[in-house]
Parts: sequence; structure tokens; C-alpha cells
Amino acid sequence: MLRTLAVAVLLSTASWAGAQDETYTLDEETVEIAHELAETALDSDLAWRITRSLTTEIGPRLAGTPQEERAREWAVAKLKSLAFDNVRVEPFELDLWTRGRSIYEEVAITAPYPQEVYGISLGGAAATPEQGLEAELAFFDSFDDLLAFEGVEDALEGKLVFVNDRMVAARGGEGYGWANRKRREAWREAEDRGAVGVLIRSVGTSSNRFAHTGMMGFPDGRLPEIPALAVSAPDADQIQRVHESGQTLRMRLRTYAGWRGEVLSGNVIADIEGAEAPEEVVIIGAHLDSWDTATGALDDGAGVGIVTAAARLIAESGHRPRRTIRLVLFGSEEVGLVGARAYANARLRDGTLENHVIGSESDFGARKVWRLSSNVGEHALPFFTAMHREMQHLGIVRGGNEGGGGPDMIPLQYMGMPVARLEQNGEDYFEFHHTPNDTLDKISPEEMAQNVAAWVMFTWFLADSEMDFRPQSEETVSE
Amino acid sequence: MLRTLAVAVLLSTASWAGAQDETYTLDEETVEIAHELAETALDSDLAWRITRSLTTEIGPRLAGTPQEERAREWAVAKLKSLAFDNVRVEPFELDLWTRGRSIYEEVAITAPYPQEVYGISLGGAAATPEQGLEAELAFFDSFDDLLAFEGVEDALEGKLVFVNDRMVAARGGEGYGWANRKRREAWREAEDRGAVGVLIRSVGTSSNRFAHTGMMGFPDGRLPEIPALAVSAPDADQIQRVHESGQTLRMRLRTYAGWRGEVLSGNVIADIEGAEAPEEVVIIGAHLDSWDTATGALDDGAGVGIVTAAARLIAESGHRPRRTIRLVLFGSEEVGLVGARAYANARLRDGTLENHVIGSESDFGARKVWRLSSNVGEHALPFFTAMHREMQHLGIVRGGNEGGGGPDMIPLQYMGMPVARLEQNGEDYFEFHHTPNDTLDKISPEEMAQNVAAWVMFTWFLADSEMDFRPQSEETVSE
Repeated sequence: MLRTLAVAVLLSTASWAGAQDETYTLDEETVEIAHELAETALDSDLAWRITRSLTTEIGPRLAGTPQEERAREWAVAKLKSLAFDNVRVEPFELDLWTRGRSIYEEVAITAPYPQEVYGISLGGAAATPEQGLEAELAFFDSFDDLLAFEGVEDALEGKLVFVNDRMVAARGGEGYGWANRKRREAWREAEDRGAVGVLIRSVGTSSNRFAHTGMMGFPDGRLPEIPALAVSAPDADQIQRVHESGQTLRMRLRTYAGWRGEVLSGNVIADIEGAEAPEEVVIIGAHLDSWDTATGALDDGAGVGIVTAAARLIAESGHRPRRTIRLVLFGSEEVGLVGARAYANARLRDGTLENHVIGSESDFGARKVWRLSSNVGEHALPFFTAMHREMQHLGIVRGGNEGGGGPDMIPLQYMGMPVARLEQNGEDYFEFHHTPNDTLDKISPEEMAQNVAAWVMFTWFLADSEMDFRPQSEETVSE
Repeated sequence: MLRTLAVAVLLSTASWAGAQDETYTLDEETVEIAHELAETALDSDLAWRITRSLTTEIGPRLAGTPQEERAREWAVAKLKSLAFDNVRVEPFELDLWTRGRSIYEEVAITAPYPQEVYGISLGGAAATPEQGLEAELAFFDSFDDLLAFEGVEDALEGKLVFVNDRMVAARGGEGYGWANRKRREAWREAEDRGAVGVLIRSVGTSSNRFAHTGMMGFPDGRLPEIPALAVSAPDADQIQRVHESGQTLRMRLRTYAGWRGEVLSGNVIADIEGAEAPEEVVIIGAHLDSWDTATGALDDGAGVGIVTAAARLIAESGHRPRRTIRLVLFGSEEVGLVGARAYANARLRDGTLENHVIGSESDFGARKVWRLSSNVGEHALPFFTAMHREMQHLGIVRGGNEGGGGPDMIPLQYMGMPVARLEQNGEDYFEFHHTPNDTLDKISPEEMAQNVAAWVMFTWFLADSEMDFRPQSEETVSE
């Protein structure tokens, strides 16, 4: 562990040699307060208690459902009880998709070796006919094989397409994007080739017999007319073994998923008003909604706990930062960043977008923060170097300057807002993520406290500065 | 690890000091053949391939169901293909219990925080009414609290009783028996107090969101008239948190479980006939049936693979032991050792019981064997000491002389047959046991090969000896 860290620090020092030439000196009192805040945070279990409250008192909270509405009510009450005095909800419209009757859906192998297996509809999928459907499986070892498949005419007509790609585990979740292609795109390739349904090996790295759900992709608004499910990794293994034996495999599905029309969702917002430049906003966030099969403790109950506790600890410290800190608990993240888009569009309309000096979200579980990355103008890198130096004692290394600020920061970043991120250790995140296993017992209060310590320092430094983090025009040109 | 082993060896040497005084010298050729067999076993993946075949081609195989019948047919065909030439099925009758429509049963919290949870009927439970039932929960932190509960008259009338004891993880599974009391007995205590159903925190040590099924106890033949379920540990945590908040919790159940009348099950038997004393039998076994929610890879597909491979490697070695080695793949173990009782009773009837010189079963997963224990006459202990010495290079320590030989050996042991056991490392066994997670991917072929190496030596030594392992009359008296 120590060796790995040492190497990482060396590499990062080397690649930042240019930026290191310039130095930035943080205000002495700002630094002192940041350390005070971090010490308080390390001794506090507030974040964990907030997450416990959300996951117990609301439980699963799928975007657009009455459960998500209860989560908003919970958030408003919780923020008021934590002495935020300007809590508000910004509603927005959403096309609702739900699983239908139950989180238990019927998936079975019917031939050659009949057995029930564990599967779950992907977000956006259509239902089977009421009585279910049964069909032969067409096995594809990878999504690329499906893309390349020409076959004889109608070779997939009436079949269930199965796509078997496996996700690679990595600390930063680097395997997720690639593995998700099949989740997002396979339905369309299958449907266009006449398939009656599509099944994928569960995304995620778990060998638990749970399937990983998640939204499919609808880039042009076209919606699937066929059921689309993930099956758990051990069941995908079983399917693969039968396929390799050369036998014809048939499966039966019965699901009730579908689109239910337009409903309201919303973002919950609270501000800590800045002392000197209240119109300048540092935005920190997390998302309130979760998938429906679990209580969403890691995704993103933990994020809600971490950023809310960080804001609260700053608010109650008696110190007031220069700029406004805005806490946003986004709605409907899981179904396509709908709350984040609504927030960004509203800021575009009300003209406050360019006042958003920088933003960041906590949405990668509850393990410790190990790296501080940024995506800011080059002139601001010495500021990050100086800020990082103060945070090193928390076990945090300095990362690159090309990344994002978390999913709900994407629309704002797209519109030009600088972002930064406190990257969490995600080596086991995809063991639990989007499965029934995402529950409170997977969280360590101690690791959460380290997160809050990092977030109070980070938020405080960003909010108590005068730095403009946007690339300056000559920087943009020089790139 | 090395330190632990060293301490264990010292302790065992100390406690066996008396037995060590006498020594036993194994036949030189017997020892040579045992080592040959072990080397072959360590290079073989036969056991894993047998387990792979059973779990893939049959899958779940609940006692008394058509799936268990297919497993018997599979076993007969497999043993014949492995050149056993006297394979036979001994049928017996069984009262069939099944879950009904599906392995997915409906369990939900309805108040104060509505959410579906993960639960599963316990073996022997009754169904809910067709439309389901909904009732208030009466929370008991432990089974002892339920036993001691007097309350006001009818305090549990119409309620769902919940029992929350937690199981302790240990290498030998020592926490299982105690934790199982609630599984076996809580239904009766609840029913007698007027409850409409009983729920327990899942037995097992897993924090996965799966519930652990298993048979309840019916010591006097009385059967439950109420539904009885286990809920997963994270859901039990959720229930506990609501209980601790002082609020009334209500749940809804809908299950279809029940007893279905008498059916046939059976044991599958094959012999390697002894060269000099064919009437003397060393019995080695495992069980064919599994629970219905998984493919029973660890419980007991692995045991089937291990003992079958061990018998096959001895049979194909060209060496013939003095005594007969009998391989028994028992039916209907999970539902009350029904196959083991049938086997023992049949031996009592046909007069061959006393020819069973010793027996052992592999039924504790697929991790390495770490200890050799026995329950034999004191005069036979030097034989075990000598045998153990030859097996030490496999990483096996010598255990005590008070244990059992595995579940399916209990009826024979009860009738006087000596037993021994190759104890496996069970530290993670109850993470998977009796849950949907008991699948092939949890097994390491290398650990299985070590098991087979231990089993070929053990079986060969026992079968190629003249030792009478029964306590001699003066030993029995002296105890």
C-alpha cells in the first residue's frame, strides 16, 4: 500500500513539474480554519447518521416514484433540522419508468436443464407479454460480436439475444464505461435484428447471484419494444457452460416493466451565503434517487450524507466563507441526469450560470478519498497544489486535470463550469452498485468521516478564495 | 498461518501424549501406494469436473422433486462412465415439501417505511392465504426472549413473530448449531402463542441480501400451520432499526409453500470390491440433493465430486485394497437425513451393518482439509497417528476423537459404526450455504484437488488395513 502510494506521488510530481514552478500561497487563517474543520469532521459520525436516516426511513427511491417524493420531503425536513434556513425544492418533469409489480421478476432456463435464475429488467425496458415469453437463446460472447453479426437473414428473428462481456475490476471503476456499452446499446442491436428480448451478463464485478440494473441508452428518443434484462454473473456462467456444450438453450421471461407517463421529480437546494461575494457559487452535490432493488446506501445515500455533513459542519463552525456554498441534492440522476440537466438549464435561463465558480459531487460509494483531481484553468493549478498539500495527511494524492466532477456536474461542466473531484477508492464499489446488495451495512462510519474531512477542507478552500478557476482566454488558445 | 499451525500441532501432540506412547507401523507398500494416489490426485481436476457436471446439467435438486430424480440418473450414468460396474439405486419414501410456484417469494415491509425485502420460506413451512397476509411484527432480539415471553394474554395473537439472533463465524462452523435453534424451533413457539407467521434473521454469516433457507424441526411429527421465513441480514438490520425507533412495523407475506404427499427418493451406491475381505465395508459418501434456490455447488456438489473422484482414482490405480470401499451418494439429506436413515435401516435389516468398519462423508464445502478427526476405539488411535503422519504434507493437523463423520454418517454412527472426518476450512462456508449464492464459481479446483488427495490416502489406509476401529469391550467399560 505504502509503496503504491509512493510511486503514485512520484509520477504525479513528475507530470506536474511544470505547474509546480509557480506557487500559490493560501491565506493563513483560511488554512487554519480548514484544519479545524477537518478535525471536527474526523470526530463526527453525522454523515453516517444522515445516510442511515435516508436508507432506513425512505429505503429504495426510484426516480419519479412516490418514494423519491418522500425522499425530497425527508431532505427538506433534514436540512431544516440541520439549521439550513433557505431550503427549497426545484421541481422538474420526468418520463417515469418502473419495473411494475415487484422487484422479483421471473427468469428461467427451460431447456436443456430447467432452473430459475436471477435476473432483473434494465431501466427503460418493455414488459414481456402478460403470460411471459419463451424463446431460444442466441449467445454472443461480446457486444462487438453482436455488432458485427450479419448471419443469414432473420437468424435472430424470434430469439433472445444474450451478450456476455465481463467487466474488469479497478480502483477507479475504469472498467464500467466499457462494460456498460452492452447495457446501453444491446437492446437496439437485438431489436433491429428481430430478437424478442435481450439479456446481458450483469454489469459489475460481483460474483454474488444478483443482477445489476441501470438505465439503457436512448440517444434519439427511440424506446425499446422488447424486454431487456441483466442476469447475475453465476447464472451467466451457467448459460455460457450450456452454450459451450453445443446444446440449444431456451429461456422463459415474465416482466411487467414499462414507461408510465410524465410525473414530477425535483432537486433539493440549500445555500450557505457567502460573506463577501454571495453571488459567487461553489456547488457541492449528491443525488437523492436510487435504484429500486436496494436502499441505495452507497449510491448515493453516502454522497448525500457526506456533502450534507460537510456543509453543515462549515455552517455551524461560525466561520463564513467568502463565496456562497450551494448544496444540491439532485433528483432523478439514475435515469439520465434529469435533475442535473434541469438545474443547469434553469441557471442558464436565470443568468446565474456564470456565477458558478466550481462544482463537485460525491457519488462513488463510501470508501476513503484517495485522490484530488481537477478540471480547471492552468493558472489555477498552483492553487490546487497548495490546497492538496494541506489535505495530504488524510491520505490523498494529487490527480490529473482532465476529469469530471461527478455525474450531476456533467451538464454544468458542459456549459463551461470548472470542476474538481475527491476520488474515492472504488475497488469494491461494483460489487454492490445497482444491485439488491447496496445497503447500509456495506458502509464504514470511519471511512465516511475521512470523506467529510476531505470535503470540508476542499469546500472551504474553494469557497474562501478569490480564484477564478475558468481557463483564461490565452490558456484556451494555447491548448 | 504457519504460527497457527505450529501451535495447533503442539496442542494436539500434548493432548494425545497418552496415545502417542503406543505406535503403529503401517505396511510399507500401503504407504507407498497412498503417496502415489495422493500425487495423482493433486494433479487431477476430476472432482471439479464432476461437480461442474452436476451443477450445470442438473442445477438445483430439492429432495423428492423430479430434479433430484434427474440427479440420481445423472449419478448412475456418471459412475458407469467412470467404470464403476456395480452401480445401483436404493429407493426410499419421502414426504415432499416444496416452495410452490417460484424461488421468489413476496416479502415486504408495509409500514412505517414501505419497501420490498428479501426473504425465503424455511423448509416445512405452510403457505400464506392465497391473497397473502399482512400483520404487525412482534420483535424478539433472541430466541431465548421468545421462549421466556409470557406477556399479557394473546399478546402475539394475529402477529408476525420476528427473531433476531445472529450467527458467529468460525472456521469449523461452530456458530451454526446455536443459530439454528431459531430456525428449527421458533415456528412452534410462535404458533402456540397465536402468531400468524414467523420470521427469523437469516442463519449464516453473510451480509449479502440473500436469506438462508433450511429445514425446520418437527421432533414429534407436528407440522406448522403458519408461514415461516428467513429474511436477509441487511433486511433484518432494517427491521431492527425500525424496531429501535419505537415505531410499529407491519409486513406483508405471500408464499405458496407446503407439503405435497409421499414420493420416492433414493441413494446411489457403487462398490470397489475388496481383494481379501470383500464383506468388510469402508463407506465414503456425500449427498446428491441440494436446496432449491441454488445449484448446490458447495452443498454438496463438491462432496459428490471429491468422494467420487477419490473412489475413481483408487479404482483406476490398479491397486486393490483389502476391504470393500463403498461410495454412497445419499438422497434427501437436506430434509432430515432421510436417505442416510434409509441406508442404515436397510443394513440393519440385511444384517450387514456390523460389516461397516468405518465411515466418513464430505459435506462442508470445497475449501482445503485442515484437520483429521476420528471417533474410534482407543486402541485404534496409534493407527490414526501413523496415518496422519503420512498426510501432514497436505497441510492437515490431527484432531480429536469425539466428533462425527458428517451428517449422513449420523444414523450409522448412532448404530455403532466408527467414524472419522477430513475437516474442511469452513470460515466462509456460511457466506454461501443454503442461499442462492451456492454456485460453481465459489469453488477453487486447486482446493478441491487437495481434498481428493486427502481422501484417497484416508480411504486407502482405512480400506487396506485389518484394524477393527470399534471400541473394544474393556475400552467401553473404562470410559
